[in-house]
Parts: sequence; C-alpha cells; structure tokens
Amino acid sequence: MKAIRVGLLGLGTVGSGVVKIIQDHQDKLMHQIGCPVLIQKVLVSNPDKKRDVDVAREVFTTEVYDVIRDPEVDVIIEVMGGIEETKQYLIDALNEKKHVITANKDLMALYGTELLHVAKENSCDLYYEASVAGGIPILRTLEEGLASDRITKMMGIVNGTTNFILTKMNVDKSAYEDVLKEAQDLGFAEADPTADVEGLDAARKMAILARLGFSMNVDLEDVKVKGISDISDEDINFSKRFGYTMKLIGIAQRDGEKVEVSVQPTLLPDHHPLSSVNNEFNAVYVYGSAVGETMFYGPGAGSLPTATAVVSDLVAVMKNMRLGVNGSGFIAPQFEKKIKSSSEIFAQQFLRIHVRDQVGAFSRITSIFSERGISFEKILQLPVKGHDELAEIVIITHQTSEEDFSNILQKLNDLDVVVQVKSTYRVEGNGLS
Amino acid sequence: MKAIRVGLLGLGTVGSGVVKIIQDHQDKLMHQIGCPVLIQKVLVSNPDKKRDVDVAREVFTTEVYDVIRDPEVDVIIEVMGGIEETKQYLIDALNEKKHVITANKDLMALYGTELLHVAKENSCDLYYEASVAGGIPILRTLEEGLASDRITKMMGIVNGTTNFILTKMNVDKSAYEDVLKEAQDLGFAEADPTADVEGLDAARKMAILARLGFSMNVDLEDVKVKGISDISDEDINFSKRFGYTMKLIGIAQRDGEKVEVSVQPTLLPDHHPLSSVNNEFNAVYVYGSAVGETMFYGPGAGSLPTATAVVSDLVAVMKNMRLGVNGSGFIAPQFEKKIKSSSEIFAQQFLRIHVRDQVGAFSRITSIFSERGISFEKILQLPVKGHDELAEIVIITHQTSEEDFSNILQKLNDLDVVVQVKSTYRVEGNGLS
Repeated sequence: MKAIRVGLLGLGTVGSGVVKIIQDHQDKLMHQIGCPVLIQKVLVSNPDKKRDVDVAREVFTTEVYDVIRDPEVDVIIEVMGGIEETKQYLIDALNEKKHVITANKDLMALYGTELLHVAKENSCDLYYEASVAGGIPILRTLEEGLASDRITKMMGIVNGTTNFILTKMNVDKSAYEDVLKEAQDLGFAEADPTADVEGLDAARKMAILARLGFSMNVDLEDVKVKGISDISDEDINFSKRFGYTMKLIGIAQRDGEKVEVSVQPTLLPDHHPLSSVNNEFNAVYVYGSAVGETMFYGPGAGSLPTATAVVSDLVAVMKNMRLGVNGSGFIAPQFEKKIKSSSEIFAQQFLRIHVRDQVGAFSRITSIFSERGISFEKILQLPVKGHDELAEIVIITHQTSEEDFSNILQKLNDLDVVVQVKSTYRVEGNGLS
Repeated sequence: MKAIRVGLLGLGTVGSGVVKIIQDHQDKLMHQIGCPVLIQKVLVSNPDKKRDVDVAREVFTTEVYDVIRDPEVDVIIEVMGGIEETKQYLIDALNEKKHVITANKDLMALYGTELLHVAKENSCDLYYEASVAGGIPILRTLEEGLASDRITKMMGIVNGTTNFILTKMNVDKSAYEDVLKEAQDLGFAEADPTADVEGLDAARKMAILARLGFSMNVDLEDVKVKGISDISDEDINFSKRFGYTMKLIGIAQRDGEKVEVSVQPTLLPDHHPLSSVNNEFNAVYVYGSAVGETMFYGPGAGSLPTATAVVSDLVAVMKNMRLGVNGSGFIAPQFEKKIKSSSEIFAQQFLRIHVRDQVGAFSRITSIFSERGISFEKILQLPVKGHDELAEIVIITHQTSEEDFSNILQKLNDLDVVVQVKSTYRVEGNGLS
C-alpha cells in the first residue's frame, strides 16, 4: 500500500483547509482508496510564519519547482491563486505527469480549455470542482449526475459577497454603501471589492458552468456583466412590491444552437427557489429538458467547504490512479461556440423612470413601447416624494429582445418629459402580485 | 464502434422515459461514450398494447430470461418493480455478467447490500441513482461530490405525494382527507396511498441514503416510521403560529459511532431551506462536518426526471466499459452498524394537549416535565373553541430524549386533568417567533 503523495501550492485559507481535511478524514480516505495520503511538499512564501495547521517544517519550500519536480509527488493541488505564472506552473506540472487539482476560477475561466488539453496529452487528471460554488459539487453534477440530459438553462447565485450584501439590503433595508462596509468588517468582502460587486468573479464561474453544461468553449469575454453597485433601495422596494426578490444572477441559456451567458442583478419571483438563498450561500439552479427544475445549494466559499471540493477531487484522482484510468475523463466540447446577438436574447425587463408630471407624459412613454410591439405585464405610477413636479413610473414589460429594449431606452432618454431612466433590470419568471 | 445494447425490464412510466431519453439524446450519449446505444430487448406483459414510445414490435418479449440471457445485451435496466422475483432476476442477470441499473427502491432498501455483493463478485456495475429522489443525483453526490467529508446528518423530503398533500394543507388550509382525494385525482397519489402516506416509501429511501452517507449497513427495519394521516389542521396552524412549517422529513443522524434513522412529520423553522420545498418536489439536505449545510432539490418522480437518473447511470456504466473498470465502484461499509436506542435520540418536541380548565391543571402538567429536567422553549394556552370546560396547551420543549418524552406522555395520559394528548411532533432547529 504505497502512499499517495500530494504537493500543495499555497497554504492560505483553502490550503489550510485541505491539510486539515486530509488529516482529520484520513480514515475515510484510506477506506475509499486503500492507501494513505501524505502531504509531501508545500509551497509557501514564508516558512517561518505561525500557522494553525500541523505541517512539519521540513515539507515547506519557497521554490515552486521543488514541489512540481519532486519525483515523489503524485498530485499537485493549486490553491495559491494567480493567473499567468500559475498557468505555466500547472502546465509544467502536467508535463511532469503530475495530476492537478485547482480551486482557481480566474485561471480556469481564462485558460481552462488549454489546460484540460495539456492534461489529456499527458494522460493526467485535471479537476477543478472547487473553482465554482465552493462546497457544492456542481461540476460533477453537470458532467455525471445529469450526463444523460440536455441542459438548457442554468441560473446561479455564485458569489457569496454580493448575495450577502443584497440579502442585507432586502431584509434590513440598508443602503448599499452601509452594507458593503458591514460585509468588509465581517470579512465577507475584500478591501477592494471590485471583482465581487462588479460581477467579474461571478462571470468567471458562469463561463466555467456554461462550458460544461452546454459542451461548448464559452470564453470569459462572451459573458455580459453588470454589477450591483448601482442598485438603490428604491429598486429593492419596488421589486418587493411587485412580488420579486433582487439577486445577482448568472444566467446561461441555450436556445437551439446558440447560447447567452450573463451576470446581472435580476428580479426573481419571491417563490423561486433561488429567492430564498440568503446571506453568503450559493446555489445553482439547473434546468434540463428531461429532468426539469433542479437546484444545488451550499456554501460558496470558506476554508473547509472549498477544501471539501478539493479533497473530493483528490479522491477521484486517487481512484483513477488505482484503476489506471487517469486522464480519461476529458470530453471535448460537442458544439461549436455560437453566442446570441442582442436581438436574439429575450427577457422581461423592469424599468424605473422619473418623468415630469404633465398631461400626456404617460401616454407618450407607453406609445414608445407599443410602436415596437412591447406590452406591459405590470405598471405603476406614483408621485416622487419631495418632488411634486415629478412622477415615478415603474414598468415590468413582457418579453422583449435586448436590442429592442436598448432602442426603447434611447428613445425614452430623448423624450423631453423623461427626466431620467433611473434603473433597468432583467426579470425572470412570473411574480406573485 | 460496437453499439452498447440495453435490455429493458418494464416499459411503464419510467421505462418509456428511458426509451425516450436514449432516443432523443442519442447525440449527447454518442459524444460522451463514442458509440451508439441500442434498445435490444424489452420485457412487457402485453406486446400488443398501444404505447407512446417508438419501439419496434420485434424487440418485445413476455419472457424475462429472453432479456437476461440475451448474449447481445450488455446492460439490464430494471424498471418493472417488484421485490422477491425481481431480486432473483437481477442476481441471474449479474451472474450472466450483465451490468444492472435499477430504479427499484423497495428492492434496494431490502436487498441492496446483497445485490451489490453479487455485482462485485461478477465484476459488474450495479447503479441505482433513480431509486432515491428521482431526478436529483443525490447518491452520486454522497459517494463522489462529498467523498472527502464526514456526513453527520441528512434530512430529506423524499416522497412527493406527502409533500404535495402537506403543501396543500398548509397553503389552502384544507383537511387531510380532501387533499388526499385531490392528489389522487391529479395522479400524485395512488388509489391505495398507504405506502406513501404512512411513510414507508420515504423510509426505504432513507435506509438507502443512510447506508451510503454513513457507510454502514442500515436495514429498512432500523428506520422508525410515522406517517402523515393523523395530522390535523390545528397542528398545522399551531406550527405556523410558532414559525414552523410541517413537513414529512426523513432524518438520518450520526453522533459518534451511532446513528438514528427515522421518517416522521416534523416541524422545521420557516426559514429552513427545506421549508420552501413545495408540492411534489423533493430535496435532500446534507450536513457534512467540513462542508456544512448543502441541499439538493429537484423532481422526485415522474417519467422523464426519473429516467434521467437511469440513463445517467447508463452513461457511467458505458464509460466504465470503455475503460474496462466495471465493478470497481463498490466500497464495503466502513463502519459496523450501531443504532441509537430511544434514550440516545435527542430532539425538541411539539406537544398539543386538551386539559380540563381547572385550577392547578397547568402546573400539574408542567411539573411532570420539570421532574425530568425538561424545560420549554415555547408554551401557549388557549380555550378550546366550543368547549368552555377545556383548555388547549401547546408546548415546544427543549431537547429531550425520546425515552424521557415517551415516559412523560405516559404520565400525562395518566393524569386526570388531561383529556387527551392530541398530537406530538419532532421539531428541528429554532423557529422564528
């Protein structure tokens, strides 16, 4: 029973979790794969730093190739982050015939396709379950659990920071800036929260999900992105009034041969399963043409939850080693990439406008919609508090193409009675009220 | 590219779905496994019956061994139901070196361990994803996605019929009998609903889940079962008042080396993820010591959803065939079976009692609890409508052992001021109010 030896790149939050799980669950790992798992080498920047994991001083190195080229190492676990340099390390590791497990969504979103090919050429495994939705085994579910189905839509709450902020804005009626500050104090948001709040982090995960779910080489740049930093409490309140919950939703949808992938603040009906996914939790809603609606819910980040995904990947690699079938999991994309244009993307839209409260204003606005054949599902007009001369119009349209909607917005902005288009959001499904 | 040939036992609801998915998703299957999938033989009771699937008349047979012993058949898919006879057919099929996929929870709950051993001896695969929670790939998730974690608790809504009934009782405030009738009319409940409403169907699924999640040979008879047929609208209303939702919940819990498995109507806090799983949907909530809370949601029954699970199992078998590693997935239970006694099972309890409204009644009741050291989390006393001489006492206790609680019930029943203990239910987690 030769031990399987792991080289760890990085010993931060996730890396420490990986060490803890390998140590604490050694019995279960042994039982499943029939041999022990050892931490052979660990790349760290400072070997003398005090850490709360039990790793012998002599396995530390500050030289990445000490790990990658260690002939004893069977599997490299990459939890150090970074993109360009890290990519080269993993290519070198694969060329050294090391199996690779990574939690690096930035890297996989940009270079996943290339890395998977290098792995295949070397008959090595490359697993990356932890890169999307932390502890939720969603990649495995798409590849195996739903292997027989045709997936037509995925909607994901795949960024815990923004979901925490939006939950607080919803429940406590706090303003965006205040909640962001609270999230930073609690450690749920970074000092520079841009990648999270502007939707980039979620976009990376949606690119990875779309690639697997649609078997198509979707690139990160194919994902349209809009963040949450412009959401006002008025938007949240009007959403609620119409029976919707505001969430940052990644949407990947396939119609015929073409797909759309986006991340944007979206109004979901209150009774939608994703609407009750709160705080820092993640969830991915998957629609398959045969299975119908499914949803997978869990912690999207954190040391131990993310490490669970990494070590479950390690179990898969070790089972493959035992059977001698590493590198066999790779399936080339089935479909050529075809991305919808804005005239092919259809959705309902929420729209909030401030107009001058004068005779005929309302009908001039609605006629712009009717000229384009766009009808309304819901409409509400109210005075604007503290501004007697203004009225607030809130509209939820029926399905419209993004192109038509964008033209309508242009025309509205050109209208003299329109003071400002305050906000627009995509709407999914039907609300309650 | 030799085709892989399937022998189908049964062509009812699920069987028809399997044929449709194999036909409709042939491209995806081909892409994943590199060869076509053919329906070689189908066991039916009446070959002349008109069916809405496109199967050539000549593949039908009424003789089960025509399928099992067909030398061309690689994989047997069992979707005919039945227990003792069907078990023998599957053993014979495995001994003929056919891989087996079954959707049969009754069979797997009773004889799963034995069948898995026969499969292993024959180096054959035996997969049964469809036997629990239809289209939700929960077995694969426990075995692979959470392979690295120690699962300590599973709570499942694993019977769609009872969840439909309880949802209607909650939302429409209808009585049990009326909703059952409606469910039967809609086809969500059988003419004889006993196995569903008395919790037996859910118990079978919980036995299967507990076996996998705890790696222990839990038997069906180890599962304590209580159905929903005694739930009154008063119970539902008082639950709501305290901030709880009534669900039929399968609970499998591990503490140290011992486990408990039960199915019973349970009060969950309204904000619990399982509380918003409505109608005929299923969900399994899994708690792992590292990953924390996860939940897997989807359709628990139906032709195509269940068939998705069957055909995803078929994809797994075919991948194994290509790699020559069939039969390698079997992992013997890690732990010896140890079931908790009633003095080792702890939970909060809901209790509704009718008492004579006389001086000292309340304190005599509460003293029975305090003698045993059981305190209350919530307590409510109200007059019983139309019965001035009676009072209704509703209590939610803090944690108590089942043994203590059962003794308390005995003492309450012996008390002259107690007219009747109307109902008791397990309570999970903390309510809102």
